[in-house]
Amino acid sequence: MKYEEVLKKYFDKVYTEVEFVKKTYQVLEPLGFNDENTIAGKCICRDEISQSIRSVIKHMWGEAFNFSSLAGMFFAGKTGLAAAMHHSPISGGKEQYVFYALPHIAINKEGRIGVCRREGREEESTACGALNAFQKEMASGKVNLTMDNEDVEQSLIRMRLLREIPYGHVPDLLELTRTALKAIQSDLETTISKVVDTNKSNYAIISGIQIHGPSGNYVWPSECYTVVNGKRETLNLK
Amino acid sequence: MKYEEVLKKYFDKVYTEVEFVKKTYQVLEPLGFNDENTIAGKCICRDEISQSIRSVIKHMWGEAFNFSSLAGMFFAGKTGLAAAMHHSPISGGKEQYVFYALPHIAINKEGRIGVCRREGREEESTACGALNAFQKEMASGKVNLTMDNEDVEQSLIRMRLLREIPYGHVPDLLELTRTALKAIQSDLETTISKVVDTNKSNYAIISGIQIHGPSGNYVWPSECYTVVNGKRETLNLK
Repeated sequence: MKYEEVLKKYFDKVYTEVEFVKKTYQVLEPLGFNDENTIAGKCICRDEISQSIRSVIKHMWGEAFNFSSLAGMFFAGKTGLAAAMHHSPISGGKEQYVFYALPHIAINKEGRIGVCRREGREEESTACGALNAFQKEMASGKVNLTMDNEDVEQSLIRMRLLREIPYGHVPDLLELTRTALKAIQSDLETTISKVVDTNKSNYAIISGIQIHGPSGNYVWPSECYTVVNGKRETLNLK
Repeated sequence: MKYEEVLKKYFDKVYTEVEFVKKTYQVLEPLGFNDENTIAGKCICRDEISQSIRSVIKHMWGEAFNFSSLAGMFFAGKTGLAAAMHHSPISGGKEQYVFYALPHIAINKEGRIGVCRREGREEESTACGALNAFQKEMASGKVNLTMDNEDVEQSLIRMRLLREIPYGHVPDLLELTRTALKAIQSDLETTISKVVDTNKSNYAIISGIQIHGPSGNYVWPSECYTVVNGKRETLNLK
């Protein structure tokens, strides 16, 4: 299967990063969010090929708080979230936040999932490398679930994602990426529920998967919604 | 004391971010590092006011691997470092990496350390917020050293930095920032010693402190060096 076929099979709608961030801005602006009254935060992977969307978010919203960890996991916790909140502009007495939560996956031109090329390297590379390494461990039957002090984040990824995976089941990389997306959104929402007062703040969650294709990056939008004056409303980005 | 006096008292030499990154590039280029054969990595705070240097690093080196955590701590571990390495270009059979390790601190125009303003907010803000929160806990005598699952990174910061602080001593924010710098560099170096083969890779470490002044960001260079063909050489950036 070629890239386009695989993309179409697994992702019902994709945008380029520029189209995606613009679209989210256009949808959020009539709801009261703009670059002057809102702080953006992004939860993407540490991988350098993921960083391009950072520049686009900066262009639309201004510099964003950086929630990114390996695989795009949300490990910045209550302190990280509270910091971003306390850096938000205050407009009409309210703080406003837009959170982009986007784990990533590569698809190469032959349609192989998880495979990409890196500038200046001959051999194939993988994305997401952290999820791919964990997937291979599960497939081998040998998963170390203790905390490795020399590899804290990867240890946290294993512990956190196995909470979402039926014991003994080995997801493929695409399924694992969707599992990571679910965990990221859930951890962000749990932390929001502990520190955000919706009488004083409005926010938006924009979740999806960042896809590295053979000729650039794309985004598949997943659940996207706003909470304005305490009321949740779904955003339609399809 | 005013900003300039405080800056001069505590930091012997500062550059604007553009001057600093350009200078490091100019010093590293004759030693064989350039944007075509080297991957950059940056270890700065998650704070949105720290992100401006990311754009400068991108401009000089291309997109950088994102090692950043709260306070600029290095928690990406062996998996994170190995990922960045495996994404490096290969030139003359070798990988090459440049790591920027820069915790941050604000100084306001009256010379108050840790204090800054945020766009769209009236009241004063702090940077580094994570270090400031920890400093206040130490000063209060009440430090929770268990792992808080809702605040993983801040828990890790407390545990890691207290390894460097004499028991019972309460550093001020500037001293704590220097302690963080020492820990970040040390953790990066320890991880490098476990995963980097200096027969196959050359690298540079650029450490310092990012300073948020009343009219922009600056960098004070600390220890900077290269390891080329296994041989360590100090870089003079002053």
